[in-house]
Amino acid sequence: MAFKIGLLGLGTVGTGVAKILLDPVGRNPLIKEITIERVGVRSLSKTRDISLSPDLFTTTLEEIVTDPDIDIVVELLGGLEPSRSLILKAIENGKHIVTANKAVIARYGEEIYTAANEAGVYVLLEGAVGGGIPVIKPLKQSLGANRINSIIGIVNGTTNYILTQMTQEKADFDDVLAEAQKLGYAEADPTADVDGLDAADKIAILASLGFGGRVKREDVYCEGIRQVSAVDINYADRLGFIIKLLAIAKGSKGDASDTLELRVHPTLVPKTHPLASINGVYNAILVEGEPLGQVMFFGRGAGEGPTASAVVSDIMNIVAILSSGGDSKTLEPLLTCTHQHYCNLTPIEALETRFYARFLCRDVPGVIGHLGTSFGKHRVSLESVVQIGFQDNLAEIVVVTHNVKEGNFRQALSEIESLEAIHSIPSILRVL
Amino acid sequence: MAFKIGLLGLGTVGTGVAKILLDPVGRNPLIKEITIERVGVRSLSKTRDISLSPDLFTTTLEEIVTDPDIDIVVELLGGLEPSRSLILKAIENGKHIVTANKAVIARYGEEIYTAANEAGVYVLLEGAVGGGIPVIKPLKQSLGANRINSIIGIVNGTTNYILTQMTQEKADFDDVLAEAQKLGYAEADPTADVDGLDAADKIAILASLGFGGRVKREDVYCEGIRQVSAVDINYADRLGFIIKLLAIAKGSKGDASDTLELRVHPTLVPKTHPLASINGVYNAILVEGEPLGQVMFFGRGAGEGPTASAVVSDIMNIVAILSSGGDSKTLEPLLTCTHQHYCNLTPIEALETRFYARFLCRDVPGVIGHLGTSFGKHRVSLESVVQIGFQDNLAEIVVVTHNVKEGNFRQALSEIESLEAIHSIPSILRVL
Ligand SMILES: NC(=O)c1ccc[n+]([C@@H]2O[C@H](COP(=O)([O-])OP(=O)(O)OC[C@H]3O[C@@H](n4cnc5c(N)ncnc54)[C@H](OP(=O)(O)O)[C@@H]3O)[C@@H](O)[C@H]2O)c1
Ligand SMILES: NC(=O)c1ccc[n+]([C@@H]2O[C@H](COP(=O)([O-])OP(=O)(O)OC[C@H]3O[C@@H](n4cnc5c(N)ncnc54)[C@H](OP(=O)(O)O)[C@@H]3O)[C@@H](O)[C@H]2O)c1
Repeated sequence: MAFKIGLLGLGTVGTGVAKILLDPVGRNPLIKEITIERVGVRSLSKTRDISLSPDLFTTTLEEIVTDPDIDIVVELLGGLEPSRSLILKAIENGKHIVTANKAVIARYGEEIYTAANEAGVYVLLEGAVGGGIPVIKPLKQSLGANRINSIIGIVNGTTNYILTQMTQEKADFDDVLAEAQKLGYAEADPTADVDGLDAADKIAILASLGFGGRVKREDVYCEGIRQVSAVDINYADRLGFIIKLLAIAKGSKGDASDTLELRVHPTLVPKTHPLASINGVYNAILVEGEPLGQVMFFGRGAGEGPTASAVVSDIMNIVAILSSGGDSKTLEPLLTCTHQHYCNLTPIEALETRFYARFLCRDVPGVIGHLGTSFGKHRVSLESVVQIGFQDNLAEIVVVTHNVKEGNFRQALSEIESLEAIHSIPSILRVL
Repeated sequence: MAFKIGLLGLGTVGTGVAKILLDPVGRNPLIKEITIERVGVRSLSKTRDISLSPDLFTTTLEEIVTDPDIDIVVELLGGLEPSRSLILKAIENGKHIVTANKAVIARYGEEIYTAANEAGVYVLLEGAVGGGIPVIKPLKQSLGANRINSIIGIVNGTTNYILTQMTQEKADFDDVLAEAQKLGYAEADPTADVDGLDAADKIAILASLGFGGRVKREDVYCEGIRQVSAVDINYADRLGFIIKLLAIAKGSKGDASDTLELRVHPTLVPKTHPLASINGVYNAILVEGEPLGQVMFFGRGAGEGPTASAVVSDIMNIVAILSSGGDSKTLEPLLTCTHQHYCNLTPIEALETRFYARFLCRDVPGVIGHLGTSFGKHRVSLESVVQIGFQDNLAEIVVVTHNVKEGNFRQALSEIESLEAIHSIPSILRVL
């Protein structure tokens, strides 16, 4: 049997997908059954890194999503529109969807999955998280027997590259960002990466799959890495930590009243933790479940080859199911999101975590007493208080807390901020 | 729909499987559709860590594999017989098979898969390699779009624990083995683990899946860790390496004339390599493919919970396919081994790798010249020659080669062995 796909987009990932499909020898035998029927792009005149018949190309993407010959629409445009509308239109026309677009799924997943469930088609998205690292399918299939306790990931290669460089080269954020942009590891407008938005899209998707409930993207708490300084990376190092941008989903299903923590922020990770050694543009996702314990998936989180590998594996899956001719809907619990209810998210104030805070202060002995009093009053217990250095005439004091309620910690801080002896609180970070 | 399984064995893994199935809340909804119909064990009187109706138990395992009510037989007995015969009998009776028994699959996989293909049933084995780490399904499904270049794994927890302890405690093999046996990390008869046989079973299975050809288990070259000494671990450390028992499958499909390297041996791994930091009982499998690049899967390679997680995921997969009512054979390229041909294995003499060798010798300046001459004659080029220490009156010289043909290296060694100045060659190890 032959299956026809329509490619929306022939950029980095689309080109990678086409290369695999045009060169099937030595790959899974299903690849031979897939042909590229149409390709939708913005420019017909661009020179492309792959030879495809010009007849396949169109700039009218509507033609592809409504083409009766096409079985599977592969959306690799990026961005919210026209991706969202084209996906919905394709579903309406009975096409199965494969996409690597985390932004559109994280924001419009509900609308898209509702439409797909009604139309009886699949929407697969392995490429959207972790590039070539198999994580979406394993989470649904291989780990499905577990109750998932947590999913913690380094899911954005740009920020991991920047933090790794800042750590290894003792360099500042702005310099490293500029260099990353030059090397093509960061985009001209780095906001989505650097402010944690891309990581938040991804953890929203992983949480929804792992914890079996819908997640509102706007409810993911999100802090980026702009405020991480070389000073803090250095102090963290001396205290036994490495700073990483983590995307965290934590909860326990099994009890409907349980809530889920969902957050993206720079985090002090103990050096012995498996995520501490994930450097550069690599991604890793650590899943903890019962009775599984911990498993970690590691690899390149982006790039033409890795992402295309994931996209083509999704196409293969759909092709296998279509060829079986069975009632494909029964395979859904293994492949896609079928849940209707929303996960109950813990508000950030109620979250319990450890904190790292750095204070600049005028009068050290006095301040340590005051810190103790203020933290104590708000039930914040301290794991360590260290005076590590001086900046100008000010002493630098670093505090690491035990697990505390974020709300209590913030109250203590606002009290401390008003102390005469405190000059400023340049950094507040969470500790894993 | 409800699906009935027959459990052969209710030991460590069988108990873990039963626990998951009896407590489905918060897990994949498919789990609720699976019921335990019969349980086969050796002793009816044993007290067990799980409450199952005594009516379910039998010691006549034949009854289970021929029971017309049973859809899936889950073999968790271990060992070659009666596992092999029961699996074949179950297949003959139209049952799908789930097993965690790497020994039986590595040795009788051909017979079992041939029977299964004829009978139109599945034989799934996620639990057989890497315990709870999803690797079999990801290799077939998520990585299926790739040409696999290599699969390198730390797939035996016992030996990794022993080597880690030897490294961290600077202890000798025998002492650490005795301690591991006390802790339950090594069996009373440690042969299968310590001599690399278990790892060889596993790499034979992974290679067959990854490279799409059958593999004869007896053709896997296999060296265990008994000859690894604290002295070599120490020298390796000073040269920037950690010694690990690696299971290696390397080749490139895409060309039928290509051959596959398949071997298990202690290996010097550069400290910066992702596998170097996998310690204790943990397992990790590193897969390299085109266009994917590297991905690594990491987790606990054994134990009740992790292995049961993998076994139940296989049961879930079959249940999903059975409920779809389609022609399940078409899903095979994603799930199981369908290939008929044998992989063409590289004989160990033809293998190219780097070597580490340690020499004890009487006359240092003379020896270094002789070593150079003998290696040169056999086209073995040296990366480094270091004299590191003395033992009694003998100088200890360590050599690391560039990539060389194993045959050439062995010829040079046998010449060197006969040199007057050479007292002995206590260790020869391969370098990654
Ligand atoms: N790049 C990665 O490493 C990576 C990794 C994981 C996920 N992803 C996701 O994969 C998707 C594609 O990324 P990419 O890097 O391949 O993007 P890209 O290189 O920018 O390519 C986008 C493609 O879509 C076409 N396109 C965009 N908007 C269009 C419009 N309105 N009408 C017609 N054609 C349009 C472009 O046409 P022209 O060629 O004519 O300009 C181009 O071929 C995104 O959702 C991204 O988040 C990418
Ligand atoms: N344990 C692990 O961590 C692990 C990890 C990966 C894979 N595996 C694989 O999983 C399989 C099971 O391992 P396990 O550790 O669960 O073994 P186990 O604890 O020794 O349990 C074996 C079970 O099979 C039953 N049994 C054995 N031979 C029998 C026979 N001839 N007739 C009837 N019953 C028999 C035993 O009955 P009684 O209970 O009456 O003695 C017991 O219930 C093996 O293939 C192993 O390689 C194990």
